[in-house]
Amino acid sequence: MRRLATRTVLFHQAAAQSLGLFPTDLKSADLLNELGPLTAGELSEKTGLSSGAVTALIDRLEKAGYAKREKDPKDKRRVIIVPLTAGKSQVKELFRSLSTSTKELTNEYKPEELDLIIQFITEAADIMEQEMQLFKSKS
Amino acid sequence: MRRLATRTVLFHQAAAQSLGLFPTDLKSADLLNELGPLTAGELSEKTGLSSGAVTALIDRLEKAGYAKREKDPKDKRRVIIVPLTAGKSQVKELFRSLSTSTKELTNEYKPEELDLIIQFITEAADIMEQEMQLFKSKS
Repeated sequence: MRRLATRTVLFHQAAAQSLGLFPTDLKSADLLNELGPLTAGELSEKTGLSSGAVTALIDRLEKAGYAKREKDPKDKRRVIIVPLTAGKSQVKELFRSLSTSTKELTNEYKPEELDLIIQFITEAADIMEQEMQLFKSKS
Repeated sequence: MRRLATRTVLFHQAAAQSLGLFPTDLKSADLLNELGPLTAGELSEKTGLSSGAVTALIDRLEKAGYAKREKDPKDKRRVIIVPLTAGKSQVKELFRSLSTSTKELTNEYKPEELDLIIQFITEAADIMEQEMQLFKSKS
């Protein structure tokens, strides 16, 4: 798990660098894609970044065209951050080869084996998220 | 896998930040711990960072006390980067809770299930490393 984590961080560093972004910027944009539009406060909670850091992050994402600030159509007093990465061919291209290789890897396993692996990875992701929250509450 | 990757990047960002380091710095130090002393050239190859970026990285690691430059005892003309993180209680403390939670997670699985999961995760880490190298050769 530690070996995978090291390679994950380094891969995303290289990928983000090639787009002129910080690794956190790229993954925050990814988080927006996964969860849908969030307020700055929600993004701060999910990323573990301070509210000042989140403001700077949203500025960078807006400037690079990966997200934009919009008034929440359900509540005009709220500002939400809307992801724009889904349509970005540059980002898709970046992860295409990784995505293909990962799919090829999963093809080598039986459905019941994949169920087990997906369960483990989902639980590991939950742990990582809980740990980040714990960590944030300590600092 | 993507969800785990996002949480991994964000967790390491928060962890590195609390130590006054960039996420790549922390993982590069971790890579040194895993692989043993490397030259700057080898570190550049393994991390996917340019040689200029690696020089700056080693400067930061030295300054923070996570690594030091030394003459290779086997070849005095070579300079190797020696990891010092293993003894750093601050770094251990940072990952202790994550490590405990991950161990608890693995205890829920049977040995043969863990063999399968470890195999998959090892292969996924190999893919991530290959993709980073591919990526580096393109940029």
